Amino acid sequence: MITQKEITLPSFKRGFHLITSILLKEIDELPEKGILHVFIKHTSAGLTINENADPTVTHDFDRFMNHLIPDGDVLFKHTSEGDDDMPAHVKSSVFGQSVTIPVTNHKLNLGIWQGIYLCEFRNNGGNRKIVLTVYS
Amino acid sequence: MITQKEITLPSFKRGFHLITSILLKEIDELPEKGILHVFIKHTSAGLTINENADPTVTHDFDRFMNHLIPDGDVLFKHTSEGDDDMPAHVKSSVFGQSVTIPVTNHKLNLGIWQGIYLCEFRNNGGNRKIVLTVYS
Amino acid sequence: MITQKEITLPSFKRGFHLITSILLKEIDELPEKGILHVFIKHTSAGLTINENADPTVTHDFDRFMNHLIPDGDVLFKHTSEGDDDMPAHVKSSVFGQSVTIPVTNHKLNLGIWQGIYLCEFRNNGGNRKIVLTVYS
Repeated sequence: MITQKEITLPSFKRGFHLITSILLKEIDELPEKGILHVFIKHTSAGLTINENADPTVTHDFDRFMNHLIPDGDVLFKHTSEGDDDMPAHVKSSVFGQSVTIPVTNHKLNLGIWQGIYLCEFRNNGGNRKIVLTVYS
Repeated sequence: MITQKEITLPSFKRGFHLITSILLKEIDELPEKGILHVFIKHTSAGLTINENADPTVTHDFDRFMNHLIPDGDVLFKHTSEGDDDMPAHVKSSVFGQSVTIPVTNHKLNLGIWQGIYLCEFRNNGGNRKIVLTVYS
Repeated sequence: MITQKEITLPSFKRGFHLITSILLKEIDELPEKGILHVFIKHTSAGLTINENADPTVTHDFDRFMNHLIPDGDVLFKHTSEGDDDMPAHVKSSVFGQSVTIPVTNHKLNLGIWQGIYLCEFRNNGGNRKIVLTVYS
């Protein structure tokens, strides 16, 4: 059985943001056993799973990734939409645009420290569309 | 219900290439609701989703990734298959070897700018095998 | 149909380790056609697919990633759990915490050179929990 829902996230500022509870509110009921697939319909944002407790972690992610894949790098020629655009595309593919999570006993079977991050790579990314698919 | 098909892509030159339409031609019909899983059976190529309109983006991807994970880096000892081999393995794991995409109303539920890229990391990668699995 | 099993891997030392055969031993039977989803319930380890033959490859992965995302980088402020902790979080998201593999004719439909890696990014990661989900 497959259930599917498309939602729109509010605008988040550039950086990494925990959205596990926002996503769970959108799902009526998780099955006894199955999989949740979360997909973001954009090429300058991403989804990943990481540490859900210490806000320093999300800030470190942002600082380090901006250093590794810097705005305005001289190698980038696709610059018409701003210095943050092409790095956002690269980061989006490095982190990925979906996460797939086991569902067990009507709950996400995440580790105790795992949460779902929205990775907003643009300075002004605006609203972001997400497709939630649950199969059981 | 699961349908599955294995296909062979023609040889692509090193770089990032849009293959969405090639893949869709291989699928008879997408279900009303489901998931498409695309898997590449290689460790020196990858699959990702990114910008589908401006060819400068794929060139920027190639230039930047070759800078970040360079051919012939002194840290690499697995060099018997050429200077481009070990960087190809690393890039393959950084980008990943599969993409999973929601299917809605008999179509891939991609964002307007999203397309599927074949990431060819070898100078002479040759043909590449892909497994398409649709579940609904 | 969905079958699911949670297992605990023994402690592996920091680095990249082939675990395909360990995982397959935990699965009674793979279906004629389907998908295997492997998920690691941790934020400082990862899963990926790569070359399964030459041990130099896993060592090169370790050396190169430790260079790209170094222990004790000055950009990291989340350092209370050690210099290897925050780099482990970043690597975990770069490699990802799950792999999804087609199943065909009761076998993993991997390429001839593909194996599943446990990516252990901590110096002392300890046991790691994995959820195996097969759908068919």
